[in-house]
Amino acid sequence: MNDFQRVVIIGGGFGGLYAAQSLRREKVRVTLVDRRNFHLFQPLLYQVATGSLSPANIASPLRSILKHQKNTEVLLAEVEDFDLRKRQVVLSDGRLDYDTLIVAAGAGHFYFGNDQWESFAPGLKTIEDATEIRRRILMAFEAAERETYPQVVRELLTFVVIGGGPTGVELAGALADVAQETLPGEFRTIDPATAKIILIEGSDRILHPFPKKLSQRAVHDLHNFKVEVLTNTRVTDIRPDGVTVSREGQTQEIAARTVLWGAGVKASPLGGRLAAAAGIETDRAGRVPVGSDLSIDGYPEVFVIGDLAACSDSQGNPLPGVAPVAMQQGRYVAKLLGWKRRDRTAKPFVYRDKGIMATIGRNRAVAAIGRMQLAGRLAWFAWLLVHLMFIVTFENRILIMLRWAWVYFTRQRSACLIIGRVAKDSRPGCDPTGIP
Amino acid sequence: MNDFQRVVIIGGGFGGLYAAQSLRREKVRVTLVDRRNFHLFQPLLYQVATGSLSPANIASPLRSILKHQKNTEVLLAEVEDFDLRKRQVVLSDGRLDYDTLIVAAGAGHFYFGNDQWESFAPGLKTIEDATEIRRRILMAFEAAERETYPQVVRELLTFVVIGGGPTGVELAGALADVAQETLPGEFRTIDPATAKIILIEGSDRILHPFPKKLSQRAVHDLHNFKVEVLTNTRVTDIRPDGVTVSREGQTQEIAARTVLWGAGVKASPLGGRLAAAAGIETDRAGRVPVGSDLSIDGYPEVFVIGDLAACSDSQGNPLPGVAPVAMQQGRYVAKLLGWKRRDRTAKPFVYRDKGIMATIGRNRAVAAIGRMQLAGRLAWFAWLLVHLMFIVTFENRILIMLRWAWVYFTRQRSACLIIGRVAKDSRPGCDPTGIP
Repeated sequence: MNDFQRVVIIGGGFGGLYAAQSLRREKVRVTLVDRRNFHLFQPLLYQVATGSLSPANIASPLRSILKHQKNTEVLLAEVEDFDLRKRQVVLSDGRLDYDTLIVAAGAGHFYFGNDQWESFAPGLKTIEDATEIRRRILMAFEAAERETYPQVVRELLTFVVIGGGPTGVELAGALADVAQETLPGEFRTIDPATAKIILIEGSDRILHPFPKKLSQRAVHDLHNFKVEVLTNTRVTDIRPDGVTVSREGQTQEIAARTVLWGAGVKASPLGGRLAAAAGIETDRAGRVPVGSDLSIDGYPEVFVIGDLAACSDSQGNPLPGVAPVAMQQGRYVAKLLGWKRRDRTAKPFVYRDKGIMATIGRNRAVAAIGRMQLAGRLAWFAWLLVHLMFIVTFENRILIMLRWAWVYFTRQRSACLIIGRVAKDSRPGCDPTGIP
Repeated sequence: MNDFQRVVIIGGGFGGLYAAQSLRREKVRVTLVDRRNFHLFQPLLYQVATGSLSPANIASPLRSILKHQKNTEVLLAEVEDFDLRKRQVVLSDGRLDYDTLIVAAGAGHFYFGNDQWESFAPGLKTIEDATEIRRRILMAFEAAERETYPQVVRELLTFVVIGGGPTGVELAGALADVAQETLPGEFRTIDPATAKIILIEGSDRILHPFPKKLSQRAVHDLHNFKVEVLTNTRVTDIRPDGVTVSREGQTQEIAARTVLWGAGVKASPLGGRLAAAAGIETDRAGRVPVGSDLSIDGYPEVFVIGDLAACSDSQGNPLPGVAPVAMQQGRYVAKLLGWKRRDRTAKPFVYRDKGIMATIGRNRAVAAIGRMQLAGRLAWFAWLLVHLMFIVTFENRILIMLRWAWVYFTRQRSACLIIGRVAKDSRPGCDPTGIP
């Protein structure tokens, strides 16, 4: 097997994992490099943040997934740079030779140049982000329960979610469900159902990639769940005790002790390293431009896929940063390597848009599939099915189904654990966000 | 309800939670104070540490458990001291009046005066301990996979568990199962099944409270799982790369990169505060001496229960620090308050020993129930049933049963996630324990 081509894949997200799995029958040696030991099903991360699911429900160890794929090894390592001439990946502790390189390092939060906002308004990309957000949400209710000043109670029970994309909408909807369905009855001095949840969107409507009608429907559903939606509203400052927004030229203060970030996304810094090594430029979001075969200019053996790739469809529209794009790109590159090895003509990558969907809460979702537009219970059911289908392991599929059934029928969320820091800062009037 | 007696309970473990629940029909106002927002089923913590269970499977939010108990409130707060004269609990952020105080603050690790050992040999008392131990175990295999020096690989694949009580035995057994059943096939350069697991016990036999025959049986079973058992062995030093032990007068070095602590336990520092406030002395383990009604000398309205209480049975033998003792004491104090309120004669506390059990691994456990001694598959099944019975919520009972069935039949452990720190230190030859 030693004379087989060495394929190195950076990142075990949807792109990297699907590429690795699609190479299982190819005569290549695959090395999948990640700095975490698990594949994370990011689309359900907001349910960990709101206590419906446990981290282990949506994360599967990469070694275990790829255990039986004999041509593949998993490497837990940190990638620092690329040496494209020598065809090597530079790790923090060594170098790795490749014949083909697939970079699928994904994206992180982007605070539009205001990195100081990160500690006041955490985003939702990792397991640790999710448990931290869960801690902040629950600690706000705990602090409110012990607080005596009505004004501070008000601030503690006000939650601001920034960003009206699917992440922000799903987070705001789940948060409303926690406040109105799960927590009431558990507190003695506050009524969690009075919590105010505000969703802030900079553009003129939420869920921008969806048809306008579905955006409107989502706003309607959010209102029913008592989520306030502010569109055309730009955030100009975030502090521990609130946000400043600009709306129709007016500056407005929103007093809130919990602010969550679902707005900007920026490609992994590895995109920048790769572009620099290749002598090309990333786009504004830090993504690496790729050709129609997803390789980078001048290096036909180097591919970029998933959120890290700047890729357009046939009409020139940029592809969205969603799981299906990454999965299809992963599978495409694997197929391309097969074509090349057999000297067949390579077809360019074409994204097949199977539709988009976002859940708003209990029985409420929106979905745009081709020309079909769905909303309400049917869309919600479709959402459940599609997400269960794509969960990587069979065990987690069963466990998530059970947990969902449990939450649906009992409205209990058993994963409402405050973990990570011991609650020393729960005294009334103190900052519940735990910022030192 | 304002003229009802105020009962303050410190600690939401077995003692405190059972006391609170047993007071549900009494005409009292109950306040349960804990610094964590959940009740933790500690007996299964080792299964979180070895990746069979998720934290949420064995932790239940206190508010949710006590939601429907209208005479009870939960307070997330840090207790700092006691003012017994004023009948007040001193919190980090205020004071709390009581008529009756029940202190059930539990116990932590004790390193026999060698607190510097803690960072090299973490113990197993909290959720964070369990995920940290899981991280260390998995990172040792990851580092071994990338290591080139055989001697270092050997050290990385050697695991020392200190303490031959139920915690140490269960941890060593589960670790052996992970190494021999779950991980093989997942690595390409090492064979996890060659991992060496060493259980160290200071006295002449493991599982000391059990009958001698069962201790021998446990050693036999552990040997079958390839766990080496060293009795009469005292640990004299712990370093990041191994432990020094003294055995039959001889000093011996054991090179191992992962050392786990299951030996000493010391009562919560609150025991010392309480004793000082009452003008009494704690015992050597920091526990507070209590009378036959579990109250402390001179303060008939202050009770100490669970691991924090120094309490003996009718023959003068100290009661063990196990869940059943705490549960029975919690229930007893609740009953006692009822007797007092109705001016009935108070009976002294009597511990009803329902037996002890420890699991060693797959189909292997030991149990001593009255004069009956069980071992093997039957004891293992009894262990499963008893533990499921005492899990607090119905949902977790179902989920744990499913997870156990899954692990049993597939030998997969899906909760093998390395969480909390990103694996930057996995380079070969570096210290895998992540100690800064």
